Amino acid sequence: MRSPSGDLVAALDIGGTKIAGALVDSGGARLRTARRRTPAEKDAAAVAGAVAEVLDELRGAPEWPRVRAAGIGSAGPVDASRGTVSPVNIPGWRDFPLVDEVRRLIGGHPVVLVGDGVAMTAAEHWQGAARGWANALCMVVSTGVGGGLVLDGRLHSGPTGNAGHIGHISVDLDGDACPCGSRGCVERIASGPNIARRALDAGWRPGPDGDATAAGVAAAARAGDPLALASFDRAARALAAGIAATAALVEIGVAVVGGGVAGAGDVLLAPLRRHLRDYAALSFTADVEVVPAMLGSDAGLVGAAAAAAEQVGMWDRRRTS
Amino acid sequence: MRSPSGDLVAALDIGGTKIAGALVDSGGARLRTARRRTPAEKDAAAVAGAVAEVLDELRGAPEWPRVRAAGIGSAGPVDASRGTVSPVNIPGWRDFPLVDEVRRLIGGHPVVLVGDGVAMTAAEHWQGAARGWANALCMVVSTGVGGGLVLDGRLHSGPTGNAGHIGHISVDLDGDACPCGSRGCVERIASGPNIARRALDAGWRPGPDGDATAAGVAAAARAGDPLALASFDRAARALAAGIAATAALVEIGVAVVGGGVAGAGDVLLAPLRRHLRDYAALSFTADVEVVPAMLGSDAGLVGAAAAAAEQVGMWDRRRTS
Repeated sequence: MRSPSGDLVAALDIGGTKIAGALVDSGGARLRTARRRTPAEKDAAAVAGAVAEVLDELRGAPEWPRVRAAGIGSAGPVDASRGTVSPVNIPGWRDFPLVDEVRRLIGGHPVVLVGDGVAMTAAEHWQGAARGWANALCMVVSTGVGGGLVLDGRLHSGPTGNAGHIGHISVDLDGDACPCGSRGCVERIASGPNIARRALDAGWRPGPDGDATAAGVAAAARAGDPLALASFDRAARALAAGIAATAALVEIGVAVVGGGVAGAGDVLLAPLRRHLRDYAALSFTADVEVVPAMLGSDAGLVGAAAAAAEQVGMWDRRRTS
Repeated sequence: MRSPSGDLVAALDIGGTKIAGALVDSGGARLRTARRRTPAEKDAAAVAGAVAEVLDELRGAPEWPRVRAAGIGSAGPVDASRGTVSPVNIPGWRDFPLVDEVRRLIGGHPVVLVGDGVAMTAAEHWQGAARGWANALCMVVSTGVGGGLVLDGRLHSGPTGNAGHIGHISVDLDGDACPCGSRGCVERIASGPNIARRALDAGWRPGPDGDATAAGVAAAARAGDPLALASFDRAARALAAGIAATAALVEIGVAVVGGGVAGAGDVLLAPLRRHLRDYAALSFTADVEVVPAMLGSDAGLVGAAAAAAEQVGMWDRRRTS
């Protein structure tokens, strides 16, 4: 058993909708939590104010003196090398110096910044579906497609904290233009909005509940609707090609798939595993397993704490015991 | 200056055409070299016999007692975790236990096995175009397309020694079937034989010298032939998508491109750099540089030695001094 006492990490999860914070211990427990709505429509100072409020609330906790570091998982793009963030969904923050700001607010402790896909990966590797795997890809299939990598038993976040960005690798070099500037990106084919768009374009219509999102398409696919099934099959094919590319490039044993769209379960995972057999055909890629993520919406906080602890060198004995 | 004395690595470069060996010192110099034709048409024992002859010749050198390890770069697939090789172009070797065989022949020293793309990468990182880069992709564009990765300043060979296998990531998920079992692989679009095939299929015909290889297509492209230019452009596009995917997944600062097809120079590299601007459009991928490889045909031997030295922990002080 891990001890509930000892050093803590102040974790932050920065998204376009909410800013969450927690004090996380070496067992992954959240001792204190706080959250604010992200004032994404306002200016940089207003968003920074929401971060300050979250940290103020945490700083009021009796456990605060045990904090040794802060970990931030943020919507991207982030630049860990410069300590800045420019989240697509928070227009007021462009190259915003979040690391300096948080370091000032928490009194000079080390601050580690990673992208949200990397944070989710750290959490799944610590306490979820990637636990025990030395080499893993973890991905979130939702409004967007994000991810992160574990290589040689450690989080591989890359110099800027964005590694594992599987949503924006092209698996269809002549394909549809992606908002990122490229073509045929995994996200452009496999994200929830694109699954829904493709089904609607093909003539699918939502049922009596009027749900025209990927969840509605998933329900129709489960009932056998061929247009809904075809849209999920296309998404699964793109994800399979992306996972196979990752396996060929860095060698992974497992691909962990989470996020709202992955909630469709076998509607997504069954064709994904089938297509993966075709795309991952090399001797060292053929055995990659595909498993659902285990952690829910707290993965961002837990993962931000894990990433910080790993980079700062906290908790190491406990984590390997 | 590195000292020419000190510990040596016995390096082997195993290919479908030749088996080369050398004693390599901490400065990368080849003190003794040996080579045999690969008897690829014969059985496992005959191919192993050629390896033994190469090592016998090296063992006769006065420097042999300074050997502390062996490094093998082999045509793939390899399986470093099991110590076996199954080179596509050496049919007699399937799951051949090359590491055990070499360890027996060199008297029990540690033996490190990597794929030939990883070996080339180790060489370019040590003494070539990737020197000084903490994160790099090195690739060979030739009869096939291979590669390797440097991450966080170290060779990333993966558990089986095959990481960096950029030739077999799919950049066209609906594309032509690849002999590997997948579709639209980078190699299927960008290798020399595929550049030549595509040009011929489009109606290009070789000049008076009758050269219908990629070198012939490159010469025609240099003279402005639109079909030849189009075939190189397509190869460049596939390579750009593959490099962009690598940058998004692991974050690299440079892509080093070598091999016979890369000998075409700007016929390949100019469109490659242009397409890369489109496919690598994320903030952290947009600045990836593309540079030609610096080392020639000895890269396999030098790199096998470097990979072994890094994994065994030899030469570390000299290499960073």
